[in-house]
Amino acid sequence: MKLKEIGEFGLIRRIRSSLKDSQGKAVLGIGDDGAALKIAPGKLALFTLDTLVENTHFKWNYASAGDVGWKALAVNISDIAAMGGIPTYCVVGLGLSGTLKIDLVDGLYKGLKEIAGRYGIGVVGGDVVRSLEFFITVCLLGEVAEEGISSRSGAKVGDLIFVTGELGAAAAGLICLNTAHVNLASRKRELLVQKHLRPSPRLKEGQWIAGRRLATAMIDISDGLISDLSRIREESRVGAVLWEERIPMALPARELARSIGRPPLNWALYGGEDYELLFTASPDKKKLLEQQADFPVSCIGEVLKWEKGMALKDGEGRLVRIEEKGYNHLAPSPERGEK
Amino acid sequence: MKLKEIGEFGLIRRIRSSLKDSQGKAVLGIGDDGAALKIAPGKLALFTLDTLVENTHFKWNYASAGDVGWKALAVNISDIAAMGGIPTYCVVGLGLSGTLKIDLVDGLYKGLKEIAGRYGIGVVGGDVVRSLEFFITVCLLGEVAEEGISSRSGAKVGDLIFVTGELGAAAAGLICLNTAHVNLASRKRELLVQKHLRPSPRLKEGQWIAGRRLATAMIDISDGLISDLSRIREESRVGAVLWEERIPMALPARELARSIGRPPLNWALYGGEDYELLFTASPDKKKLLEQQADFPVSCIGEVLKWEKGMALKDGEGRLVRIEEKGYNHLAPSPERGEK
Repeated sequence: MKLKEIGEFGLIRRIRSSLKDSQGKAVLGIGDDGAALKIAPGKLALFTLDTLVENTHFKWNYASAGDVGWKALAVNISDIAAMGGIPTYCVVGLGLSGTLKIDLVDGLYKGLKEIAGRYGIGVVGGDVVRSLEFFITVCLLGEVAEEGISSRSGAKVGDLIFVTGELGAAAAGLICLNTAHVNLASRKRELLVQKHLRPSPRLKEGQWIAGRRLATAMIDISDGLISDLSRIREESRVGAVLWEERIPMALPARELARSIGRPPLNWALYGGEDYELLFTASPDKKKLLEQQADFPVSCIGEVLKWEKGMALKDGEGRLVRIEEKGYNHLAPSPERGEK
Repeated sequence: MKLKEIGEFGLIRRIRSSLKDSQGKAVLGIGDDGAALKIAPGKLALFTLDTLVENTHFKWNYASAGDVGWKALAVNISDIAAMGGIPTYCVVGLGLSGTLKIDLVDGLYKGLKEIAGRYGIGVVGGDVVRSLEFFITVCLLGEVAEEGISSRSGAKVGDLIFVTGELGAAAAGLICLNTAHVNLASRKRELLVQKHLRPSPRLKEGQWIAGRRLATAMIDISDGLISDLSRIREESRVGAVLWEERIPMALPARELARSIGRPPLNWALYGGEDYELLFTASPDKKKLLEQQADFPVSCIGEVLKWEKGMALKDGEGRLVRIEEKGYNHLAPSPERGEK
């Protein structure tokens, strides 16, 4: 059987099952945003890795080398944020063709150092290999107090579902990047584009939420609200209902959707790459979250029993069952001539 | 300027210089086998990453998926060994095309789990992305007592140069893999091939040497004796002379070289991938090393002043200056039609 037939999620399930007895003494292993490893009394190391490949995750015709360097580290910081941790050090693997220009590598490290500096991360090593396609792998270490860690597996029936910030902007930004002209004020276009190219991981937010033990489960939104919520669902064995009207849509994204006749909700549900935090919390924490968080947070749904699956309640109170599709990294890429 | 013009070593120097102020509080950062980070009183975390790319590091026509999984982790273990550490946990990044067969991924993890089990390493996470060329990145964590770490930078003038095991077998193994028929007993051929495909990192040896504080500098031989010795040279600002007749050549490699009319010494000097340990030690440690080490170790040269560069003393006592070429990962690959 070929990988495109089993798909990304099927493959990950298969790898995970094959590795279930190979986790050593890890506190959290495969199946969360990162691994958690005990390194000292009361203290966990967090350990995560992500790769960006040209033409899969970005295209050089719209992303600068600095954007790619920034984002390669940003997506890893977001994983540490979702666990409530503090990022500390990273190493970087580059796959480069000899025909690339040296300026590209300079730009890449400029973007990477910029975000590393902003989040206090040391860039302490790496590897450079030859490859036809460009890729960058960042492996990031972090730390968290043992009692302050958030995982994907603690959501309970009756919990409420929350999300930080607004959704849909990154997907709308990608539309802007791939469209010669969009009917949108340049300031708004720029905002969407930046949200796609240079996401700001919700690190302080994650620490605030996890440090107060508010979340029963937490994940960052990389593949899309539905896709990432379904990961919490699977790890916690729960169902979920989302309230359509409460899902916070980025206003310029809504405006863009209207101008090109697309339903904006799809960007929020399936677009991904917003790198906001999605978490579940007991209803008695709602007031504290709404009154004391100094960042935007919205209550968008409720945790149900596993058997209920996942549904969306629209403005008229109708329940629609949600298809749990997300970004499938192993689906054929027509642009590369793959079928 | 294009990367192939600046070359791998030029590029790494450039990256390193760009990152010199971005190391945070790392005890060892860019420029060693891995990074060393203080995680608890007296205790360092080690952190290293390596990538294997198809057609750059191996070819599917001679390497099984299991071999590739094994080697991807082995080369990282070897880095931890060179620092005197104990490997603990790894994460794995895979770049896969959707047209690959699922058996390949199964085989890959079989080989990886085999060596992970042997060295007591937990496989705790990773990432799967779509890529035209196959690649596997392993990021490995380790630990070492602060006083037991070995780096590349402590070699002193007058120190002796040592190497574990025998050299040249991995390069000879690659010749066997790329040649339809070699004039060598199948048992010997198999030994060379296994040394290339499934190297056994010298972990106990590294801990024995570093734990007794015998080495002033240590590195693993991945790119070749000359190339890796020149790294110790650069980090320690010293020169070196190697004694040709003392360099331990694997016997089957010597036999193969004779049968195909090649000078076997070149495989030992430039072949690389032997994953033996190369280290420098004060002359007063020689006796202890020779009498107490329960593994093969050879004294192959002496550390000189920086100005002396690197030379080879042949059987007749003649000194030959050594060209410091190593494997350049960014050199054009004629097999891919690159110029």
